[in-house]
Amino acid sequence: MTRLHVPVPVRWSDLDAYEHVNNARMLTLLEEARIAAFWSDPAGGAPTAVLETGPGAPSITLVAGQRIEYLAPIPFHREPLDVELWIGRLGGASLEVCYEIFSPPGVEPRTLYTRAATTIVLVDRASGSPRKLSDGAREAWQPYVETPIAFRD
Amino acid sequence: MTRLHVPVPVRWSDLDAYEHVNNARMLTLLEEARIAAFWSDPAGGAPTAVLETGPGAPSITLVAGQRIEYLAPIPFHREPLDVELWIGRLGGASLEVCYEIFSPPGVEPRTLYTRAATTIVLVDRASGSPRKLSDGAREAWQPYVETPIAFRD
Amino acid sequence: MTRLHVPVPVRWSDLDAYEHVNNARMLTLLEEARIAAFWSDPAGGAPTAVLETGPGAPSITLVAGQRIEYLAPIPFHREPLDVELWIGRLGGASLEVCYEIFSPPGVEPRTLYTRAATTIVLVDRASGSPRKLSDGAREAWQPYVETPIAFRD
Amino acid sequence: MTRLHVPVPVRWSDLDAYEHVNNARMLTLLEEARIAAFWSDPAGGAPTAVLETGPGAPSITLVAGQRIEYLAPIPFHREPLDVELWIGRLGGASLEVCYEIFSPPGVEPRTLYTRAATTIVLVDRASGSPRKLSDGAREAWQPYVETPIAFRD
Repeated sequence: MTRLHVPVPVRWSDLDAYEHVNNARMLTLLEEARIAAFWSDPAGGAPTAVLETGPGAPSITLVAGQRIEYLAPIPFHREPLDVELWIGRLGGASLEVCYEIFSPPGVEPRTLYTRAATTIVLVDRASGSPRKLSDGAREAWQPYVETPIAFRD
Repeated sequence: MTRLHVPVPVRWSDLDAYEHVNNARMLTLLEEARIAAFWSDPAGGAPTAVLETGPGAPSITLVAGQRIEYLAPIPFHREPLDVELWIGRLGGASLEVCYEIFSPPGVEPRTLYTRAATTIVLVDRASGSPRKLSDGAREAWQPYVETPIAFRD
Repeated sequence: MTRLHVPVPVRWSDLDAYEHVNNARMLTLLEEARIAAFWSDPAGGAPTAVLETGPGAPSITLVAGQRIEYLAPIPFHREPLDVELWIGRLGGASLEVCYEIFSPPGVEPRTLYTRAATTIVLVDRASGSPRKLSDGAREAWQPYVETPIAFRD
Repeated sequence: MTRLHVPVPVRWSDLDAYEHVNNARMLTLLEEARIAAFWSDPAGGAPTAVLETGPGAPSITLVAGQRIEYLAPIPFHREPLDVELWIGRLGGASLEVCYEIFSPPGVEPRTLYTRAATTIVLVDRASGSPRKLSDGAREAWQPYVETPIAFRD
């Protein structure tokens, strides 16, 4: 069972008037985790960060669907949250990214705040039709394939 | 089949660098639709807007989970989106809110951009434990109960 | 003295943990007021909404600077804020937009929450160099030129 | 001349449809820099991070005004921006925070994107009236007092 641990900072303005991270804003935190995990990074980054993006890249990633379960409210933390990220399903032109958002390392007790999954589809930039994952991406991501989240209800 | 039609304005900064409404930001649009539909409004508002909120109210609403499916990217619109909203399940202390986000009235062809559902739980402000829906709320919402969304996969 | 009155809705998530509209988010409200006031609108809109924008337009508007003074915190309002907007300086290729953000019409006492000014520069889309305001824009905006805001200190 | 260097991450969704950091969102980046610089941090943090905040603290900080000048658009950066922060004026119950936002360390050429200043007022949480800066805060911040920004026009 191999998961990535992505540190994701919370901003103070992510809190809403209930003094917790706004429920919609959590998808922004997951977006940041996903970018760190998948988008190719000249400086190195995660072993899975091999996806070519940007103006010249042949494919773009589309978010087809998301599901999120809120287990405990997230208060303001100075230190980045610890987002565990893995792949629940690795398809031909799509994949399911799974996440569990935990309190920052060192904060006791360690708390699981949120569980979520995002379905990603790769499409060809020019034609807009689905585009197969490259061998390089598939190889980099295979070690992180694990059982997907079983959501309540 | 009775649904509420809630007009929800898009902001220009909801667009991201792909020139479409950011996928996370759509939950903010749904939050606005939900507030217009449920929170008691001194000025009148929707027939379902009967939920007491604010500092003095006995209960607060928690978002327990959300699911969203992106069918087509949302471009910038000057006019508010047309959010159809109904109740997929009306439980004792919880309910499922369903939404379909459409292009603004008058924009042709009418486009279904997004489908989503939110599970809401009412909790007692003081104790934090679940709190039964009031008879008034149940009565106001009953006409808007309809089949919940059948999500893909 | 002629000012535009632009209704600008507040979102619930614009509030931060202090239960007021976040200070940074107010510039987003001003951005919405500015777009309603200046960007050409096929549906009509304000008499000043004559600025061609979008992919085919020859010029784009850049924000060169902003100044904002917070006079009173903005609580959540169901009804749109009343943003008074005028032009403090109408230059060759630039203008200063002035704003006063007031409580929604009908809310008593009427409260001035915020005063602000934005310096806008028009640039040629192709070359990136400053581009003179069109005669049509200048003519439409001239009636709304008024004394600029005198900020404290 | 002593300035703090605060690393501030950009989020992908901070970019707007022009593919640059949205002009309003930049104040959110400055808010993050300010919190890192001033709010007391149990884990250590900057030498100036001595301001007691939170539910039990006797004072709260209010933003009275802000000024910002945009010199160059900010593209997406994987690495945090380098925000230089200093104090332009250290008053009795107020201070002016000055910032220059630079490209991330190591990105060539080093680019100054934005200059800004925020006027902060300390108020008593209970009474709401201005509250003098503590000796400890004044002592911690004194080394970072420098000439304030001379804005254009």
